Amino acid sequence: MVIAAIIACGVFAVLIAVFFTRSIRAIPIAEGAASPEEAQRVEEVTAAIAEGAMAFIAREYRTLGLFMLVFGFLIWMAVDNGFFTMLSFFIGAGCSMLAGYIGMRIATIGNGRAAAGARISLQRAFSIAFRSGAVMGFGLTGIAILGLIGVYIGLDALLPTIERHVLMEILSGFALGGSSVALFGRVGGGIYTKAADVGADLVGKVEAGIPEDDPRNPAVIADNVGDNVGDIAGMGADLFGSVAESTCAALVIGASAFRVVPSHMQEGALLFPILVNALGVLGSFVALFFARPKSEEHIENALKTVLIVATIIMAIVLYPITVALLPPTFTLEGSTRLYTNTGVYWSLLVGLLSGMLVGIVTEYYTAHRYRTVRAVAESSQTGAATNIIYGLALGYNSAVVPMLLLALTVVVGISFAGMYGIAIGALGMLSTIAIGLTIDAYGPVSDNAGGIAEMSHMGKEIRSRTDALDAAGNTTAAIGKGFAIGSAALTSLALTSAFLTRAKISPEQIGLTTPPVLAGLLIGGALPFAFSALTMRAVGKAAFDMIAEVRRQFREIQGLLEGKARADYRRCVDISTQASLRQMVAPGLLVILTPLVVGFLFGVHTLAGVLIGALVCGVMLATSMANAGAAWDNAKKYIEKGNYGGKGSDAHKAAVVGDTVGDPFKDTAGPSLNILIKLMAIISLVFVPFFVKYGGVLLK
Amino acid sequence: MVIAAIIACGVFAVLIAVFFTRSIRAIPIAEGAASPEEAQRVEEVTAAIAEGAMAFIAREYRTLGLFMLVFGFLIWMAVDNGFFTMLSFFIGAGCSMLAGYIGMRIATIGNGRAAAGARISLQRAFSIAFRSGAVMGFGLTGIAILGLIGVYIGLDALLPTIERHVLMEILSGFALGGSSVALFGRVGGGIYTKAADVGADLVGKVEAGIPEDDPRNPAVIADNVGDNVGDIAGMGADLFGSVAESTCAALVIGASAFRVVPSHMQEGALLFPILVNALGVLGSFVALFFARPKSEEHIENALKTVLIVATIIMAIVLYPITVALLPPTFTLEGSTRLYTNTGVYWSLLVGLLSGMLVGIVTEYYTAHRYRTVRAVAESSQTGAATNIIYGLALGYNSAVVPMLLLALTVVVGISFAGMYGIAIGALGMLSTIAIGLTIDAYGPVSDNAGGIAEMSHMGKEIRSRTDALDAAGNTTAAIGKGFAIGSAALTSLALTSAFLTRAKISPEQIGLTTPPVLAGLLIGGALPFAFSALTMRAVGKAAFDMIAEVRRQFREIQGLLEGKARADYRRCVDISTQASLRQMVAPGLLVILTPLVVGFLFGVHTLAGVLIGALVCGVMLATSMANAGAAWDNAKKYIEKGNYGGKGSDAHKAAVVGDTVGDPFKDTAGPSLNILIKLMAIISLVFVPFFVKYGGVLLK
Repeated sequence: MVIAAIIACGVFAVLIAVFFTRSIRAIPIAEGAASPEEAQRVEEVTAAIAEGAMAFIAREYRTLGLFMLVFGFLIWMAVDNGFFTMLSFFIGAGCSMLAGYIGMRIATIGNGRAAAGARISLQRAFSIAFRSGAVMGFGLTGIAILGLIGVYIGLDALLPTIERHVLMEILSGFALGGSSVALFGRVGGGIYTKAADVGADLVGKVEAGIPEDDPRNPAVIADNVGDNVGDIAGMGADLFGSVAESTCAALVIGASAFRVVPSHMQEGALLFPILVNALGVLGSFVALFFARPKSEEHIENALKTVLIVATIIMAIVLYPITVALLPPTFTLEGSTRLYTNTGVYWSLLVGLLSGMLVGIVTEYYTAHRYRTVRAVAESSQTGAATNIIYGLALGYNSAVVPMLLLALTVVVGISFAGMYGIAIGALGMLSTIAIGLTIDAYGPVSDNAGGIAEMSHMGKEIRSRTDALDAAGNTTAAIGKGFAIGSAALTSLALTSAFLTRAKISPEQIGLTTPPVLAGLLIGGALPFAFSALTMRAVGKAAFDMIAEVRRQFREIQGLLEGKARADYRRCVDISTQASLRQMVAPGLLVILTPLVVGFLFGVHTLAGVLIGALVCGVMLATSMANAGAAWDNAKKYIEKGNYGGKGSDAHKAAVVGDTVGDPFKDTAGPSLNILIKLMAIISLVFVPFFVKYGGVLLK
Repeated sequence: MVIAAIIACGVFAVLIAVFFTRSIRAIPIAEGAASPEEAQRVEEVTAAIAEGAMAFIAREYRTLGLFMLVFGFLIWMAVDNGFFTMLSFFIGAGCSMLAGYIGMRIATIGNGRAAAGARISLQRAFSIAFRSGAVMGFGLTGIAILGLIGVYIGLDALLPTIERHVLMEILSGFALGGSSVALFGRVGGGIYTKAADVGADLVGKVEAGIPEDDPRNPAVIADNVGDNVGDIAGMGADLFGSVAESTCAALVIGASAFRVVPSHMQEGALLFPILVNALGVLGSFVALFFARPKSEEHIENALKTVLIVATIIMAIVLYPITVALLPPTFTLEGSTRLYTNTGVYWSLLVGLLSGMLVGIVTEYYTAHRYRTVRAVAESSQTGAATNIIYGLALGYNSAVVPMLLLALTVVVGISFAGMYGIAIGALGMLSTIAIGLTIDAYGPVSDNAGGIAEMSHMGKEIRSRTDALDAAGNTTAAIGKGFAIGSAALTSLALTSAFLTRAKISPEQIGLTTPPVLAGLLIGGALPFAFSALTMRAVGKAAFDMIAEVRRQFREIQGLLEGKARADYRRCVDISTQASLRQMVAPGLLVILTPLVVGFLFGVHTLAGVLIGALVCGVMLATSMANAGAAWDNAKKYIEKGNYGGKGSDAHKAAVVGDTVGDPFKDTAGPSLNILIKLMAIISLVFVPFFVKYGGVLLK
């Protein structure tokens, strides 16, 4: 029964995605174009972006495939039930890749149509961009749900006698697969998008003096591809990973907890975590109908309304389901304490509400409607240095309340439902993911639409409409990033809990001040800083390759700057792709090797410390980077609206410096930290048997 | 016997300070002056700086006195043996204030003489600056040792029947007193120095276009006063606090450990921590004789040699003393594990060597001899944004190895000597403090000498000599900051250990994943970010007051810019003083109230989590800020030497932005974090009885 319900919701999600895909594809590419020439230009630019995006994804997936084979083999060799874990791993990776591909595909179909649609009306353009986002949001969620339940059914059929908790441990390979794809999507994609952006800006805007999104700039297509690569595929893979990971963490802990549940309730209790995701599809679907902006000013509110509606629906729906499916009382592995099913509901609720509150706090610190961002804009009057100092201080400050909300969610979760409560809190936060991701993906599609309008010379009026769509997208993007970090933190804690449950370590055994744990905390605390240094410099190096290429084209292609010759866009896309994959090797190895090396050399206690230490510093750093970046961006926009001297003033020049510093902050280093804290935790969870058997060689 | 040895060393340290003071005072102020006019100018400028420094210290100490009375009363009321704890607190505060006063006094005497001495020879100037530093280093260490042993003797006489471990707990009030002064010195002083610096630079250099240290700039005296306030008094109070705190932590833990030691050994074992400090005076004294630079290039090496010699001497001397004084085996409170006296020696040694290695790593990341800083300089060619990104990345990276060294020290300490080992590791690191502080204080004296040479129009040749002295001082200042952070971290861990010992909490009771501890870790991790945001903005606000005043003087004082009228220096000093004391209220309250509120509301388990969480994030943030700041400074200097276009080039302008961002990083926000992590820990230690009795109201 529960399985049927889960499958039904998963299929429903996929059908929504298919329906919207068809409805967008049914629109002619340049439906509202003013002239056949304009239609042709829109088609050309759209095709170039789509081609670049697909070229990137083809190359990335090839590298990824090789990586998967090696890592899969390692899993097979090192872990109990390694073969089946490896299979789960491949399926998880495949599902995430499929979801990423679909998201990129629809975004590169919807972007041109949204630009052309803006000629008809604002609502038309909004509807196309929003539906493109929904394909991503619902498609990805559906694939995640069907993938998880599919692997569960498959393992159940292949290994009918296996214990449930072992089955769930094998299933966590699925999450590791999804998370490995996210490493490439977030870190590689993050480097790609900013290398292209910085390269396009520094040579095009600064050196050659041509405007943003000008077709003469050879890096302009790469820049637009980058928005899809980073904000669609990267964000999608990140959140796919979070959903799969928090679900698997809950499944692993729950399987131990519900071993003694009456048999007619067992399946429902066991699969409850997947059902929470499945129900989220329904709640998100209802919320879709509230996405009706009346005017340009109303877009942002419409998007926020959608989120709040989904949150309220989930808060109501989850209560009866939780009480009906879970046993009234239960205990957890290694403890005799009794927890209740209403306690599980409270954990879900606090996670759900925390997610929404993180969003509201993020908006307060990043929208230029509030005095926080305006103070950064004001500080630009005394130069770039004060702009940087105020932006950094804003970022640091903005991370405090989200961290306290995280602490609250953790305390409520553990108090009401032990380790299970943490995983459940993460699930609660992620239960609105279908609609959350819809709104996230709406942003880059609108952004691309603006770029296409510019490159196709569609005129000022159209550009101002797409700009209105994009501005709302910027704010929701910041909210989405805050949400992604918050859910990554909870997911990582949930995985750490599952890791400890699986390693049979009770809290008394990991005393805060014991040498292995304390050393682990200190080492873990250093990791986010080391990792951020690597990703920030990776952007610098990749951008340098791009700068050299753009300069070369300006120099060697005759008539390019006069608009008489065509730039070699493809070469820039190639260079960004290659550079990003090369530059992600070092940070990627740091993430993957740290848990393996620490677990092998120092054992599971130190590894637990490393995971928590990385989490504490990682959340603060990631949130402050994401919000400082968004605040610098919006402070610049606030000045461009005519404040403090407006565009071209000294204050504006200072604000541009902040914005440029903020780019790798908010789009590369910050979001990549999500991967650091989650991937280390899921690797630790999957490799537990290996660490227990062979780990801690240095301490023996 | 042990007491006599300690007193002898303490008196010896004070005598060295007195001797050097006399030898400097015996030099006429403008001994080497080229003309009577020059002599008069040097005297005038020196007097103005001294007057400003004393005005600041008088006002600061007045505010501090009021604060002490209130806080002392709170201690009296809230803590067992509150009256005597309050007395220790007052004496500790008094000793720290005295040490700070002496340091400031001698620095403002030595600075002018060093400038004038530079006319005679480089060695002459070096010798004056170095001896001024030694007055600070040895005077402060002597006062700390005599204060600690004096309070011990006094308490012993007043409370003859009291148990030793209770006596040591009362004694920890001394450390709290010292650390409270450090709050004002580091945070208030840090705000003062950068408000003056930024104010002087932004209006003087940028707006009015007059050179650095030009006497027409009304803020120039405040700027020079700031060097003394921040780098002498602030650094001194910080390290006085570290010495007192780590010693008290070791005394508290040791008193429980050595209760069962044979009575003839008891005093030696109990007072061993103070003796380690006392022996450090002798080792530092010997090292003094190695401070003989042969040429300008040789200054930095001479200073480093001095440090290494002191480290080697201490490594050798401490072994026989440790073995002779401590019992061959001992156990710690709440555990049956046997530790040995040689284990204590290993803890000392690792702390000692870690301190030196932190220094070497710091130098690698901050001196422009290495490719690390040169990469920041190179990145300035593409503008201020890349300069900022590379500087931040360098800072993040530079904190990794010090953190690993800290982890190593902690693991070795706990493994070989339990909680006692952590405190002992901190003592080991701080045992070379007399010579370390000598070198630290040498820097700002040389810096001031340069300023005086400029303001007294002594000519290019003299300025280039003082610049050579100052350049070596810059590098050693960076090393000193790294050392101060490392020792603050160990001290804070030592205090946390003592806090846990006193609260009778064993490691099993503070499981990493229990709700109170995990919540504490998360809250604690947020604190350094919140605190840094406060201090960074405090500098901005205080600088704004200064900017307004300098602009007013340029506007209202006729003939000032033409050099015909004299600026009102005193008013700028006043404004900096007032603004800094006002702006330190918010960060000060955050530091003091957090442990009190958390302990009262959530109890000691959460508080333990908060202390460790703040430590992990605080060390990373403080180290990265200090090193990024120093690297930006030196990248700018590297460009000024003619690289990448030299002074006035676009790369130089970009580097100036980085340097300005780095100023509050390295001189305010970074060092202030030392106080955050230490002061919260010592407050927790002193208020343990209160928390145990009344704490945790929300969780009851």
